[in-house]
Amino acid sequence: MSLTAVPNLGPATALTCRECGQSYDLGPRYACEQCFGPLEVTYDYSNVSRERIEAGPRNIWRYRDLLPVPPNVTETPNTEPGFTRLVRSDNLAESLGLRSLWVKDDSGNPTHSFKDRVVGVALAAARELGFKVLACPSTGNLANAVAAAAARAGIRSAVFVPSNLEQQKIVATAVYGGTFVTVDGNYDDVNRLASEIAGEQEDWAFVNVNVRPYYAEGSKTIGYEVAEQLGWRLPDQIVVPIASGAQLTKIDKAFQELITLGLVEDKPYKVFGAQATGCSPVAAAFKAGHDVVRPVKPDTIAKSLAIGNPADGPYVLDAVRRTGGAIEDVSDEEVIEGIGLLARTEGIFGETAGGVTLASLRKLVASGALDPAAETVMINSGDGLKTLDAVAAVARPSANIAPSFDAFRKAGLA
Amino acid sequence: MSLTAVPNLGPATALTCRECGQSYDLGPRYACEQCFGPLEVTYDYSNVSRERIEAGPRNIWRYRDLLPVPPNVTETPNTEPGFTRLVRSDNLAESLGLRSLWVKDDSGNPTHSFKDRVVGVALAAARELGFKVLACPSTGNLANAVAAAAARAGIRSAVFVPSNLEQQKIVATAVYGGTFVTVDGNYDDVNRLASEIAGEQEDWAFVNVNVRPYYAEGSKTIGYEVAEQLGWRLPDQIVVPIASGAQLTKIDKAFQELITLGLVEDKPYKVFGAQATGCSPVAAAFKAGHDVVRPVKPDTIAKSLAIGNPADGPYVLDAVRRTGGAIEDVSDEEVIEGIGLLARTEGIFGETAGGVTLASLRKLVASGALDPAAETVMINSGDGLKTLDAVAAVARPSANIAPSFDAFRKAGLA
Ligand SMILES: Cc1ncc(COP(=O)(O)O)c(C=O)c1O
Ligand SMILES: Cc1ncc(COP(=O)(O)O)c(C=O)c1O
Ligand SMILES: [Zn+2]
Ligand SMILES: [Zn+2]
Repeated sequence: MSLTAVPNLGPATALTCRECGQSYDLGPRYACEQCFGPLEVTYDYSNVSRERIEAGPRNIWRYRDLLPVPPNVTETPNTEPGFTRLVRSDNLAESLGLRSLWVKDDSGNPTHSFKDRVVGVALAAARELGFKVLACPSTGNLANAVAAAAARAGIRSAVFVPSNLEQQKIVATAVYGGTFVTVDGNYDDVNRLASEIAGEQEDWAFVNVNVRPYYAEGSKTIGYEVAEQLGWRLPDQIVVPIASGAQLTKIDKAFQELITLGLVEDKPYKVFGAQATGCSPVAAAFKAGHDVVRPVKPDTIAKSLAIGNPADGPYVLDAVRRTGGAIEDVSDEEVIEGIGLLARTEGIFGETAGGVTLASLRKLVASGALDPAAETVMINSGDGLKTLDAVAAVARPSANIAPSFDAFRKAGLA
Repeated sequence: MSLTAVPNLGPATALTCRECGQSYDLGPRYACEQCFGPLEVTYDYSNVSRERIEAGPRNIWRYRDLLPVPPNVTETPNTEPGFTRLVRSDNLAESLGLRSLWVKDDSGNPTHSFKDRVVGVALAAARELGFKVLACPSTGNLANAVAAAAARAGIRSAVFVPSNLEQQKIVATAVYGGTFVTVDGNYDDVNRLASEIAGEQEDWAFVNVNVRPYYAEGSKTIGYEVAEQLGWRLPDQIVVPIASGAQLTKIDKAFQELITLGLVEDKPYKVFGAQATGCSPVAAAFKAGHDVVRPVKPDTIAKSLAIGNPADGPYVLDAVRRTGGAIEDVSDEEVIEGIGLLARTEGIFGETAGGVTLASLRKLVASGALDPAAETVMINSGDGLKTLDAVAAVARPSANIAPSFDAFRKAGLA
């Protein structure tokens, strides 16, 4: 690999170990050489201002002064994700007994999940670092996003998924024409294989493995957008789905940065997490009061969240506990109900991850963990069209009739 | 139905017959009482300016001074469609031998097709006119959009589709929980049934039947956005898919309005149409030099375009001939290739309608009808996730392996 000598990743200045604080030059690193802890990007924030952000494009690159990407990132072909709708959801709020609720609808992204954000950042950083192939292990959405972004950027992709993935996500990855491998195993097996391959193929950027410090920062943009779309202020409560846990920790990081930089008023906010009971290692640790997360074997229809050994589990526990939130988990039946409720009340068709989040929100209200009078945001991170089988049995036509008015009348639908 | 005495539809002033010019008060009318010609909305454009548009929201309502909707349209719950990406498509341009190409990617809309635009306008007008139910006959995308918009607006929907529709579009309509009827017949049968029902159920707004004059205006927003996103100027050529033909005629109307109002510089532009050969009544009429369109029985995988008796067929012929464009049609195999080419070159997964449009564009370049040196826009009006079966046979993984590095190595993918 022909490494860029001194990469220009905009405001990013270094990588720092989240465990021991050891600092490293920017480069294709992801684990601490001292303690094997995960590395995180640190910044020089001196260019950041509301004015510069508001003058930027209507996608994640308006926040480029807060992301580890080259200054010219908007000039290289990318899918231009972000700035999805923040939907005021009064019908859903009423149905849940909440005073004020917003849905951040990330199904509006180019490949219809929040993964386009993290891939956008990973692609920009990987190019600058000299990588030649954009790769990933994935539970599906990341596969779609990586294959699409690589196609548009004109580089090769190499995507690895569990072979039992939803048909929708298989086709919607293969269509982009990169290298696409199904693996007989669950996500955690695929992830392990990806780490091995990353060790051998030195010019492959596995976005969520060896480029993970850069990749993960992309999820901060959800937090920035929520704050900007609320008129530069933070909500009181936010409910976020958890797979590896990166999205949740980065939304929290975004909120903290906005406060530190004076872009929003300082105020308390609570971060809540959502998992499917069939893969709820972080919820279990939270409820048991543990600091470490015990891996599980996933068994849930929420396949996009089916990570049994979540890399950011402990940091999720930190963020949730620090802010006074909680983590809930819900059954597959509740997930299906959640998808239907979001669709019927707000006209938003989320995937199983959205069902997990909504059903968890409902349970958090019922248990009293979430304050129904406080302003709440929930993330809809993916698209119902990718997990049709979850609702196909319940989302059925009202009637099938012959093409005549008489048939219509007799069906009693008038 | 309790009709609003004098509806306030913003800049709309009257309905005018497209055939005989007879003028009518704004109301729940769609056909001329003199000659049965279709009615079209006419306006007082005096409020329109670039400044007012640019100060508006990033959705179709920024153009509300050009649409038949109440001034407070942004205050009633709607899906806030529009302002989708205009994607500079250099890879695709190169592959097609074009100098400059843009894809207007309407799969970014809330239910992932341009139909959210027309439904947004129809819903706003229907409410003001006093209708109580939002209804439609549909080839699928309209069904999704109507059911979602009605759910969010908190009103009843009643949607009618051919029973052989794609499973994706069935589930993605039923999930919103309205009245949803599959009909044993093709779209033209369903459309006929809808007209009959509209005659009996006086408070049902069939968006594309008895509210059609308002509904169709929504497609103008595609034209406005293309011009605004190009920096307030028109492209030289635009390629648009045709089902009923409304989208094509309204994009042309939008361009003409922008010129008349001085919002863009006056310049010639050409409008091109795209159909699947298995349902190409307008292409056939164009090629034969006819003014009338002879209905056909559709037989194509491009189900969203499978309207054999297109309401706006003659007006499409007018617009295409007036601007010096052409209409092409392509086989189902070409449609599938078109979907793949768009995905592999630009990372955009369009539905069959997008495949029709791209394959037609390619054929128009080959035949010399389309100038490869002129700036071209093509519309991707829908989403590949809704027509997976079209590509499922060709969009396959590269390999399936065991979860070991050895298996990876042996597969020869490094
Ligand atoms: C739709 C969706 N939502 C949420 C997540 C969770 O993301 P994270 O791994 O950052 O916790 C994923 C992960 O794949 C996902 O696909
Ligand atoms: C995806 C898609 N594109 C294009 C069209 C054509 O629209 P029109 O009927 O306005 O010609 C349709 C119609 O249903 C559609 O669903
Ligand atoms: Zn360390
Ligand atoms: Zn008339």
